[in-house]
Amino acid sequence: MRLDTEEARRRFTTSEVARLATVSDNGRPHLVPVTFALAGPDTIVIGIDHKPKSTTELKRLRNIAANPAVTLLADRYDADWTRLWWSRADGNAHTLTHGAAHAGAWELLRARYPQYAGQELGGPVIEVAVRRWTGWAYA
Amino acid sequence: MRLDTEEARRRFTTSEVARLATVSDNGRPHLVPVTFALAGPDTIVIGIDHKPKSTTELKRLRNIAANPAVTLLADRYDADWTRLWWSRADGNAHTLTHGAAHAGAWELLRARYPQYAGQELGGPVIEVAVRRWTGWAYA
Repeated sequence: MRLDTEEARRRFTTSEVARLATVSDNGRPHLVPVTFALAGPDTIVIGIDHKPKSTTELKRLRNIAANPAVTLLADRYDADWTRLWWSRADGNAHTLTHGAAHAGAWELLRARYPQYAGQELGGPVIEVAVRRWTGWAYA
Repeated sequence: MRLDTEEARRRFTTSEVARLATVSDNGRPHLVPVTFALAGPDTIVIGIDHKPKSTTELKRLRNIAANPAVTLLADRYDADWTRLWWSRADGNAHTLTHGAAHAGAWELLRARYPQYAGQELGGPVIEVAVRRWTGWAYA
């Protein structure tokens, strides 16, 4: 039922989408779906791309500046509950806006998501240093 | 692109799964996938059922006792990014362990999830008073 670190990381990596939880300076959680790539065994990168955003688009960045603690969750839902699983990455985040790590993150994201073909990319990148991978599977 | 309150609630309600973000007393976010039902236009109920849990199963309840602010997210991922959407419910949570609202919540959850057929249910229920529904759709 519990997944070890390797298996939690492996399942997370196979997911195309995760959910990013941040915390505001007044202690309220915030949650958005994100696309991501792994830039190392314990490094997740998330790009702020040109998908149309609502007006609160930078809430996640403001929260990270105030409180770097973040959690990411990948999961599988299925009407057959014996197929359920989830994988969670707890870590600390900071924002990259330029430099080699920033450019490298966008290369990884572009390689992972063919949807980016032909798009200009270069917005801020959230880099998460994962402290702990945990996970669970029903069976 | 932005969804109004009615549309955000409608899409949330059509989802079979959501993700619940809580915040620990030391300001770290916590995130788990949850099944849920609506017990009113602005009331979400989440049952702690008998699906096997990891040893941290009650972290969500400890967090809510320390900080009632929670966020729930339902979303659709699709390789065709023009089909993406998400819906978010921000609110305050408390835990029910007995009484009419607790029993009513389990009735709603049982009615919504046929997977519960034949199971004994009665664990704690997280009741969320939603303060705000927001949402986004690509197109």
